[in-house]
Amino acid sequence: MSAPQPTSESISSFGVARSTVQGEPLSKEELRLTDAYMRASLYLCLGMLYMRKNPLLREPLRVEHLKARLLGHWGSDAGQLFTYIHTNRLIKKYDLDALFVSGPGHGAPSVLSQAYLEGTYSEVYPDITQDVAGLQRFFKQFSFPGGIGSHATPETPGSLHEGGELGYSISHAFGAVFDNPNLITICMVGDGEAETGPLATSWHSTKFLNPITDGAVIPVLHLNGYKINNPTVLARVSHDELQRLFEGYGWTPYFVEGSDLPSMHQAMAATMEHCILEIRKYQQQARSSGKAFRPRWPMIVLRSPKGWTAPRKVDGHYLEGFWRAHQIPLADVATNPEHLVLLENWMKSYKPDELFDTSGKLIPELLDLPPKGVHRMSANPVSNGGLVRKPLHLPDFREYGIKVTSAGRDDAFSMNNMANWMRDVIAKNPNNFRLFGPDETESNKLGEIYKAGKKVWMGDYFEEDADGGNLAFAGRVMEILSEHTCEGWLEGYVLSGRHGLLNSYEPFIHIIDSMVNQHCKWIEKCLDVEWRTKVSSLNILLTATVWRQDHNGFTHQDPGFLDVVANKSPDVVRIYLPPDGNCLLSVMDHCLKSVNYVNVIVADKQNHLQFMDMEDAVAHCTKGVGIWDWASNDADGEPDVVMASCGDVSTAEALAATALLREYLPDVKVRFVNVVDIFKLISSGDHPHGMTDKEYTAIFTDDKPIIFNFHSYPWLIHRMTYKRPGNLNLHVRGYKEKGNIDTPLELAIRNQTDRFSLAMDAIDRMPTLHNKGSATREHLLNMQIKAQNEAFEHGIDPEWVRNWKWPFGKTVTGTVAGAVSGLLGPRGQKEFATSE
Amino acid sequence: MSAPQPTSESISSFGVARSTVQGEPLSKEELRLTDAYMRASLYLCLGMLYMRKNPLLREPLRVEHLKARLLGHWGSDAGQLFTYIHTNRLIKKYDLDALFVSGPGHGAPSVLSQAYLEGTYSEVYPDITQDVAGLQRFFKQFSFPGGIGSHATPETPGSLHEGGELGYSISHAFGAVFDNPNLITICMVGDGEAETGPLATSWHSTKFLNPITDGAVIPVLHLNGYKINNPTVLARVSHDELQRLFEGYGWTPYFVEGSDLPSMHQAMAATMEHCILEIRKYQQQARSSGKAFRPRWPMIVLRSPKGWTAPRKVDGHYLEGFWRAHQIPLADVATNPEHLVLLENWMKSYKPDELFDTSGKLIPELLDLPPKGVHRMSANPVSNGGLVRKPLHLPDFREYGIKVTSAGRDDAFSMNNMANWMRDVIAKNPNNFRLFGPDETESNKLGEIYKAGKKVWMGDYFEEDADGGNLAFAGRVMEILSEHTCEGWLEGYVLSGRHGLLNSYEPFIHIIDSMVNQHCKWIEKCLDVEWRTKVSSLNILLTATVWRQDHNGFTHQDPGFLDVVANKSPDVVRIYLPPDGNCLLSVMDHCLKSVNYVNVIVADKQNHLQFMDMEDAVAHCTKGVGIWDWASNDADGEPDVVMASCGDVSTAEALAATALLREYLPDVKVRFVNVVDIFKLISSGDHPHGMTDKEYTAIFTDDKPIIFNFHSYPWLIHRMTYKRPGNLNLHVRGYKEKGNIDTPLELAIRNQTDRFSLAMDAIDRMPTLHNKGSATREHLLNMQIKAQNEAFEHGIDPEWVRNWKWPFGKTVTGTVAGAVSGLLGPRGQKEFATSE
Repeated sequence: MSAPQPTSESISSFGVARSTVQGEPLSKEELRLTDAYMRASLYLCLGMLYMRKNPLLREPLRVEHLKARLLGHWGSDAGQLFTYIHTNRLIKKYDLDALFVSGPGHGAPSVLSQAYLEGTYSEVYPDITQDVAGLQRFFKQFSFPGGIGSHATPETPGSLHEGGELGYSISHAFGAVFDNPNLITICMVGDGEAETGPLATSWHSTKFLNPITDGAVIPVLHLNGYKINNPTVLARVSHDELQRLFEGYGWTPYFVEGSDLPSMHQAMAATMEHCILEIRKYQQQARSSGKAFRPRWPMIVLRSPKGWTAPRKVDGHYLEGFWRAHQIPLADVATNPEHLVLLENWMKSYKPDELFDTSGKLIPELLDLPPKGVHRMSANPVSNGGLVRKPLHLPDFREYGIKVTSAGRDDAFSMNNMANWMRDVIAKNPNNFRLFGPDETESNKLGEIYKAGKKVWMGDYFEEDADGGNLAFAGRVMEILSEHTCEGWLEGYVLSGRHGLLNSYEPFIHIIDSMVNQHCKWIEKCLDVEWRTKVSSLNILLTATVWRQDHNGFTHQDPGFLDVVANKSPDVVRIYLPPDGNCLLSVMDHCLKSVNYVNVIVADKQNHLQFMDMEDAVAHCTKGVGIWDWASNDADGEPDVVMASCGDVSTAEALAATALLREYLPDVKVRFVNVVDIFKLISSGDHPHGMTDKEYTAIFTDDKPIIFNFHSYPWLIHRMTYKRPGNLNLHVRGYKEKGNIDTPLELAIRNQTDRFSLAMDAIDRMPTLHNKGSATREHLLNMQIKAQNEAFEHGIDPEWVRNWKWPFGKTVTGTVAGAVSGLLGPRGQKEFATSE
Repeated sequence: MSAPQPTSESISSFGVARSTVQGEPLSKEELRLTDAYMRASLYLCLGMLYMRKNPLLREPLRVEHLKARLLGHWGSDAGQLFTYIHTNRLIKKYDLDALFVSGPGHGAPSVLSQAYLEGTYSEVYPDITQDVAGLQRFFKQFSFPGGIGSHATPETPGSLHEGGELGYSISHAFGAVFDNPNLITICMVGDGEAETGPLATSWHSTKFLNPITDGAVIPVLHLNGYKINNPTVLARVSHDELQRLFEGYGWTPYFVEGSDLPSMHQAMAATMEHCILEIRKYQQQARSSGKAFRPRWPMIVLRSPKGWTAPRKVDGHYLEGFWRAHQIPLADVATNPEHLVLLENWMKSYKPDELFDTSGKLIPELLDLPPKGVHRMSANPVSNGGLVRKPLHLPDFREYGIKVTSAGRDDAFSMNNMANWMRDVIAKNPNNFRLFGPDETESNKLGEIYKAGKKVWMGDYFEEDADGGNLAFAGRVMEILSEHTCEGWLEGYVLSGRHGLLNSYEPFIHIIDSMVNQHCKWIEKCLDVEWRTKVSSLNILLTATVWRQDHNGFTHQDPGFLDVVANKSPDVVRIYLPPDGNCLLSVMDHCLKSVNYVNVIVADKQNHLQFMDMEDAVAHCTKGVGIWDWASNDADGEPDVVMASCGDVSTAEALAATALLREYLPDVKVRFVNVVDIFKLISSGDHPHGMTDKEYTAIFTDDKPIIFNFHSYPWLIHRMTYKRPGNLNLHVRGYKEKGNIDTPLELAIRNQTDRFSLAMDAIDRMPTLHNKGSATREHLLNMQIKAQNEAFEHGIDPEWVRNWKWPFGKTVTGTVAGAVSGLLGPRGQKEFATSE
């Protein structure tokens, strides 16, 4: 096989600018100032990478001026700040409201340099002054212990996108402009990042952007050609392919390619201005006519060398325009005297003495160059969303309650019911709340909300759409079959000061594990940054849950997202498993009011037994865990066994098991406990919701067997309770990767979470029973087998299992069958009074 | 705002075929047979969805013939089997080796119908016979308890792609054709699936496909227009955009659009033949010249109605060509007599009596139509990878060992060293082993392997590539900045009978949590399918681990992938944390030899202390957990404290803590334990690697404090050990979402996993010490503060911390400082003898 040769038709990032849009809009003076401002910016970037002392090189550079450990990335800095600076010109010229999203990894020096030059940095960090001492601190803190990171972290003014994990820049940028009609987000997309799946599909976001009610995004695909150690895919295809790709995605790509600074400045200035004017034209056209349409929005492909303005070669090896410029260009500068000189000459080539005055402050003509006040992209309030966040107008959820006259006997579709409330949430908040989902909103029984806000669709319309399509140009529901895009939009929407909810099937929420991790880290870190204001919580509603995925089988069974979330900081994560419809309402209301959390709510979407009227539900959810007296018969407070549950299906099965025990073994005293908020189970020292051991023991006992039916993998409960008193009495049943094509009962039996297994389990754990439980155990086993056989024959669980209802009434000591009120007894009231 | 109207330029999926490739290659007779075969296939699909009895409708359809619960999906069935059948013609005509990947969700009836008609189904499931009784069983089992699912699950002959979670069809298809030069994979891509991020970037796979050494993939984008309840993005853009998109991705798209069956058959036959011939032409051109290049490979855009061949409207609502055809088209058939008649007429419109003989067997002329033997796509051995898998030729890893003369005093780059062995693995297995990674292979210190196999790159080449680019047309390393694509390729490669390894940064492996979950479920389920043979394990090497992500900060710190993996079935998951270089070699060798697992190996890539010579390392890894006598001084077997560790950095810190204890409190007896295989910690009943309580107690004691320094979140250890004797004595330190820009020591201190915190922790836990430890504790605290202050000043940990070495020799009772051999003492030998 022949060896690879350079491809003749390859497009170099070097040379005089080539661009789609022609023109030289910058006057000589503007060009001079732009060039100087860019040199100042580049100098700051190198300063951050290398310098601990002697920030303006007013002494000859010595090794002791350098940081002992050189960290940070040079590769994308020049191209990013180049774009930033050219945006500044247009902000001033057209009075734009603009935001900058820095997508390429580790490109923070570019945006940090701008925040410093614009003065924002000194405003939020008064010790980082605009003088030599401030510059020294500004340089030293970068990628330095106790300092700031090499991404656009929460400490970075103007940032709502960190970019530690790659792929979400465009979806964040769109999230920020939805319902922000005057905002334009300039979104730098790294060509490495562009290879990720999430980024690759997020280009389709324009099919969901309304030119009347939303703002605009200008993606700048930064083709700097290289990742850590590889070329990028998009930099190594033909110009024609690249153009077609973005036209195919629905954009109008404008190319700016080259390395020659003066001509690149002119090309970028002309191109960006063209894009701004095109956006304004489309917006004007739609807004004046009231006719929304999908423009082929402008975007920019900026092909500039990796590590632009670095030496092209060092020691015979390519540096600028190659992956060697990715991180620290001269990593051995401390031990290689020639490289030390090279670095000094390189930094001085930006002529810092011309750019900063003797005090170390930027010279006045450059200080004048960027926009001022909130027009600075580093100071746009949208990037610090709490500044512009308005609390939701929430209808009183109590008015949407399900009427429950008999606990465990009435049934209802909890999710459909909650959708009534959500519909009115949307109606009352038409501009700052959106619902996101990967094509599952209707399936998840939330279709009622379309009455208040349909699904945004800017693609073509077909005749059948009128037949219940629920599509609209301006809607409140955002659906694309990409969990990544939905989550990214929601993150951008929330971080820019609005509110939202993602609804998704439980099994596939793992697709965005990593995104949620990163969002948790962002809001956790924001707590440490004094000038950061709190944003709305990011709410995730999981349904199509594991215990109703019997028919879809093994691939659709994974309740493990909770394990991922539970590993995050207790400052920011909350998990709720409401057992019924009124609890779901109470929990949802709480989540939509909260700030700075990731709230995960797990609730099934099918018909379910209801347990609590609204008042009881509110009290129960407020406590987060409680004894259900109406289901218990340990009136003396000395149970033989504690039956506990967490999750709606799990609760119904645990109750059915409790009923079996009480029916067949009436002398056995059963306490029934339900958990809504799983962090109640952790020690109070480990999570703000955690119970003390005393509180825990008062509910679960420290000496009685506890049969805990859990929605998710059982080990999550064990890891939360491993040091609780009586830990060895806790027997958790949950999902254990045992699935097939099943009925609900059979799936539960496989995992020993069905009523029969639970009841037998309880019998086995009660030493006081001795052999008295044997006959009952045998009977339960027979019932289980009978139910299984019927299910296998008919393909559906027997009616006596499916439509089981709680057979006891309110009386907590008796075993009288019948449908009476399921309200809490006196002890229940006492529980409420002692709750937090 | 104006209401949406149908868009005039919209492209309907209805009408006479429109296609890029013209021609009518089918004779009248071929057309007649193709049509009949398709009708038989469609009939089977409906049968699977609805019928429990009366499979060929030889009695009038009654409700009791139907399944009680109607499940399964009709939407994509027709388009998929249409494609399958047209592939069959070309397999026969051109003697193709072809595989079918069914991407659209829940489209199993299409491929199941083909496997049945081809006879494969009856071969692997002899009870599913080719007669009325067999048909009845075939229908009933579908989406029925105890039966098979509605995806192309492992029970489906010919499938290596389940499609439960969407987005991986193309990457799986490419994985299967790498190093399979004669294989052509027909990959149906759902237009819903096409919206996912992973799918959107996987189109770029052609930039990594070599026309000489690899086979080819024909993606068939199935534009059936709708998802569950929404139009699809790609079906609602202009024809021009669609064409440009795929040309931009580097493909040559051929369109086949319409609903009229005869003309659609001709169009598809002509188009598929054109694609096959084009592929052959490109392959021929490259193979005869020896010059690899990147062809603009052919693909097909098949626009046909959702639910094609169903009634267009039912009760005034659109069905065919709308999302209502997604799942069960007539869901109320059991309660709506009119719909029952409608269903009967619809099924009979396929004329089953013309297609199946009186016994229920397909008529001979149709039986003759598909290919035979392994040419049937349902019987391609590649889809049952173990059939074609060849074990690797592995060089003896012992010969690549790191020379360790003094345990804890010698240091080495474990990963670089392992790369020497990996290089030779690649050299010895040039056609069935590949290394995958998202642009991190060099960064992960595996660059040595390029000497045996470079990075595959079929994009353009630039002059600087010659300067150490390590790119080649035919290589062994696959790098694209998409964890999804890397993982998908690897899964496809492994499932089709080959071997591979994914290397990735630890923090971002969460990106593919869900993919790994799905792969675990696939191989777990395969264990239940008798005819499925075992495939190579899927190996994931995680590096750039949390404890060395101090400088990149919080976003780069997440060791939680292990929690996700540990939730999967114990039959298929294995996790190893080798403490040093020789253990890493031993573990890697074990993993590459194993089958049917997902092996996760966590190892840092920087310079590390080495602890074991090769023989000791092999023994230690074989045991999975062991006491390190050379680090312990509890010669009498009665320690005061057990210091335990799991993970390389964690082990070094725990050893340093042990040394501090032994130095400052020489009377304290410390036992040092190291865990390589974390599943050793689980009870033997819960995982095949688990220890019995007796084995566990022999190592950890049941009454002594255990300070366990863990690599990952501490709760993973707790959830594994919660019911072990002495559980409350186990104090695990690990990562707890406390990060910043740090030095390694400072990051550890934040999480209390540093040597000083661990030693202080141990002192606090030893009741026998009383106040005797106070002075030492104070001294340790002073040392910790001193180290921190030095680090904050210089930006780097003090040399005495960074370059710490184990100060004791081999003698297990003494405290003599000095560098002597670190081999295991006599008790170590005994441990080996009693290990499994």
